[in-house]
Amino acid sequence: MSITAPQGFRAAGVAAGIKSAPKQDLALVVNDGPLDVAAGVFTSNRVQAAPVVWSRQAVSDGRARAVILNSGGANACTGPEGFADTHATAEHVASLLEVSAQDVLVASTGLIGERLPMPRILAGAEAALAALGAGPEADESTARGIMTTDTVPKQASATTPSGARVGGIAKGAGMLAPQLATMLVVLTTDAVVCAADARAALREATRTTFDRVDSDACMSTNDTVLLLASGASGVSPSLEELTEAVREVSADLARQLVADAEGASHDVHVQVTSATTEEAALAVAREIARSNLVKAAIYGNDPNWGRIVAAAGCVPESVAPFDPADLAVSVNGVQVSRGGGVGESRDLVDMTPRECLIEVDLGAGSACGDIWTNDLTHDYVEENSAYSS
Amino acid sequence: MSITAPQGFRAAGVAAGIKSAPKQDLALVVNDGPLDVAAGVFTSNRVQAAPVVWSRQAVSDGRARAVILNSGGANACTGPEGFADTHATAEHVASLLEVSAQDVLVASTGLIGERLPMPRILAGAEAALAALGAGPEADESTARGIMTTDTVPKQASATTPSGARVGGIAKGAGMLAPQLATMLVVLTTDAVVCAADARAALREATRTTFDRVDSDACMSTNDTVLLLASGASGVSPSLEELTEAVREVSADLARQLVADAEGASHDVHVQVTSATTEEAALAVAREIARSNLVKAAIYGNDPNWGRIVAAAGCVPESVAPFDPADLAVSVNGVQVSRGGGVGESRDLVDMTPRECLIEVDLGAGSACGDIWTNDLTHDYVEENSAYSS
Repeated sequence: MSITAPQGFRAAGVAAGIKSAPKQDLALVVNDGPLDVAAGVFTSNRVQAAPVVWSRQAVSDGRARAVILNSGGANACTGPEGFADTHATAEHVASLLEVSAQDVLVASTGLIGERLPMPRILAGAEAALAALGAGPEADESTARGIMTTDTVPKQASATTPSGARVGGIAKGAGMLAPQLATMLVVLTTDAVVCAADARAALREATRTTFDRVDSDACMSTNDTVLLLASGASGVSPSLEELTEAVREVSADLARQLVADAEGASHDVHVQVTSATTEEAALAVAREIARSNLVKAAIYGNDPNWGRIVAAAGCVPESVAPFDPADLAVSVNGVQVSRGGGVGESRDLVDMTPRECLIEVDLGAGSACGDIWTNDLTHDYVEENSAYSS
Repeated sequence: MSITAPQGFRAAGVAAGIKSAPKQDLALVVNDGPLDVAAGVFTSNRVQAAPVVWSRQAVSDGRARAVILNSGGANACTGPEGFADTHATAEHVASLLEVSAQDVLVASTGLIGERLPMPRILAGAEAALAALGAGPEADESTARGIMTTDTVPKQASATTPSGARVGGIAKGAGMLAPQLATMLVVLTTDAVVCAADARAALREATRTTFDRVDSDACMSTNDTVLLLASGASGVSPSLEELTEAVREVSADLARQLVADAEGASHDVHVQVTSATTEEAALAVAREIARSNLVKAAIYGNDPNWGRIVAAAGCVPESVAPFDPADLAVSVNGVQVSRGGGVGESRDLVDMTPRECLIEVDLGAGSACGDIWTNDLTHDYVEENSAYSS
């Protein structure tokens, strides 16, 4: 169970005919309350899809009753007509549920620059409403409704010590998703929580999970992470407890996103330690995670510390103070570089596991930070060049 | 002719046995004067190879008599021993030429983290000294001495209106060079010029040429661009004249670097116009040029404006103010996106030429800036993963 593991939620995924293939492509999640608390975080790309513009505004009051999501079309760069389509979708779901359109959030993923097939979206919403349910089947069908190039549905759940539940579904991100790797995530909880705490828990949880997945440095126009709270458990966990459960579900989903980067042959975990600040550690980790030369070397099972050190050196000193002569780099546990130079033999490194751990010690302080990415493979190039979009 | 086109220079490239294959791998350029003016610009990577540390200091007085360059080894991340190797190389060339070691610049390119084979370097310097000459053969041999994965030697020359000559050789950069794409460039001129003007001309020329080639966002530990002036022509061009000639040679060499990105199927020219400042235009151009999704789409002959617009949207508004609704994107002359949405049919775009022109109009001001890059291909992945280093 995932998205309907918390009490008070029903969900469904249906095949509405938006995708060319007859697969689930529309999902609906309804919060039956008693609470209708909601929070969201969205892409920081300045080019924002219509559903992002809509949902950001609609969730700003901390309330929502439902989320409708579609794959097969991003509704981005579609102008005022595209925004009207999102608005009409929210209105339609609102009328079906007899709630205000402002309480219906919308998320889309797929091609940029094309209008959605609105008759199919609106008919699909009705079909999804009729199919709403709770339980493993409803959860998986809902998770499938938002898949694009994902090969498996992504679901997770957790329970706070006090007994409140958190569930979630996610799609995308795999660096190999051709459509800018949009990440859509819906999290649910039956905790009794106010809007401010829901927002705080979501922001803190995403900061150390989804924000640290950097598959190919390309930020989508549609990224959306939502948290809905029903209060149906009657349990009021502390903010710390709730945040930890939301973080646990988010971390699980984020790891699934990395693992489903089709064609990637390694999941790469870049851990930077002994930094002056967490921001400095993350800046170095991100620079390494974004280096095509590092990523291609890992694909070639080459623990190429020279490329790792050179990537670290590209971070300005004002951002991450460290002395290059103090750097140490370990790959899968073997310290192949120390003191800024040669360390253990790179022949000692076993690069065959799918998970590759790169540890960089800056020797400058006591803060740390990590980023997950994937290697750069032939299949990445193939998937992002051979299939036009 | 290139590096010895200006009067007062002799050069040679020899096979010193540094590379495993019997190819030229060591080059020597000597300035016979009467002037010994020199200027240099170096990588801003904080991890700097020993020859970069040496040459940056040695050229700081604005004077140099010779440059010795080697391929087959970067002498980076080699610690105090590596610096001693560079120092010994400069001392050896200085003793052969009967000049001060401080007047001998050193540049290296190749593997990171391995010591150079010093006996071969020192013997090679003597062989190069014996082979010094001027003319097309000497120029090409010298250009070949610094090649790594380059497939052709890169040479250029120009003449100021007043009759002073500028010549140059370059290696590397092709995004496919596995060794961090180190760029080594030696420029020569027989103009009569003071050290301050040589430095100013070099900085201005590189700013709009080499600095605007961004093949894969990876900055080398060894990048070096040097300008030597002999004064042998007796001609004293204005600073503007000299800068223009140095810029012309630099632009020619930079374009050759892009064209020799082995395996790349497109040379991509990203031109951003109607920006508030040149810095804003360059930031947007660089973000687009660094997007793996854009680069893979171009490899697939797909004029994917959605990915271009999304990349532009990743630049913070504080860096490049513009309204996404005002963006217009043309690919090879067809305006496929306007007003932030759909424009002409992408089917009208001919992607078959090797050169691909991406024009982005920000609609925000009157400044412009451009970046050259390459597409992301299977051969890039292959060259940077299959061959360990």
